[in-house]
Amino acid sequence: VAALEVSTLCLLKNQGYKGNCILIYDVEHVTSPDQLSEDEWAQFTRDLYTAVRALKSVCRPDHINVASLGNEIPHLHWHVIPRYKTDPRWGGPIWTIKREKLHHAEMPEKERAELITELRGFLGNQGA
Amino acid sequence: VAALEVSTLCLLKNQGYKGNCILIYDVEHVTSPDQLSEDEWAQFTRDLYTAVRALKSVCRPDHINVASLGNEIPHLHWHVIPRYKTDPRWGGPIWTIKREKLHHAEMPEKERAELITELRGFLGNQGA
Repeated sequence: VAALEVSTLCLLKNQGYKGNCILIYDVEHVTSPDQLSEDEWAQFTRDLYTAVRALKSVCRPDHINVASLGNEIPHLHWHVIPRYKTDPRWGGPIWTIKREKLHHAEMPEKERAELITELRGFLGNQGA
Repeated sequence: VAALEVSTLCLLKNQGYKGNCILIYDVEHVTSPDQLSEDEWAQFTRDLYTAVRALKSVCRPDHINVASLGNEIPHLHWHVIPRYKTDPRWGGPIWTIKREKLHHAEMPEKERAELITELRGFLGNQGA
């Protein structure tokens, strides 16, 4: 979607939760928050704040989950997951023990392009 | 365990993942990151950084997960979950669809008190 201060916001292919993004730390390869300096961490969490605000503004979810897990992919990133009262796991975490049981939905290309444009519009307005 | 800048670090009763804590935002009742100002968010994520460093230093986990979900409890908090190569869900998220299936282990009172003391020792050394 967009390069922010120290990270890149990517709209996942699986749009089972509309707007589901990851925010990947760009500056160097690290796996854990404590490998960043306090300033780098502040920049990265500022980008997270920007991403949360963009997704709340554009997707209008009922709630939002953010998580840095890195259990499968050992590079520091945030999951930013809009949640909806109508989603199949409302009231609980989206994760399941088996990855293939994760709620999955593809988004039509056109809808995906529109969503990306809207997010870029918001991020542009924020000066990001 | 300790009051940090804008939040309180609590060692959970379920110590299925040794050192599993939540960090509860203290200043006001909010449910989502975007309800904080940019400064408040910076303070709260600085506390998270402190908590991560304390848990890494004291518990020596192989990895750490952090997440702000708030699906069940509608007040802003971070889960800070030390992960171990020996834990029952290493390589995956700890969460399960049914809460009662979450890996559960109680920690003996003495061990718990020692862990809290060690975390306080680290946090004291950080001036927090």
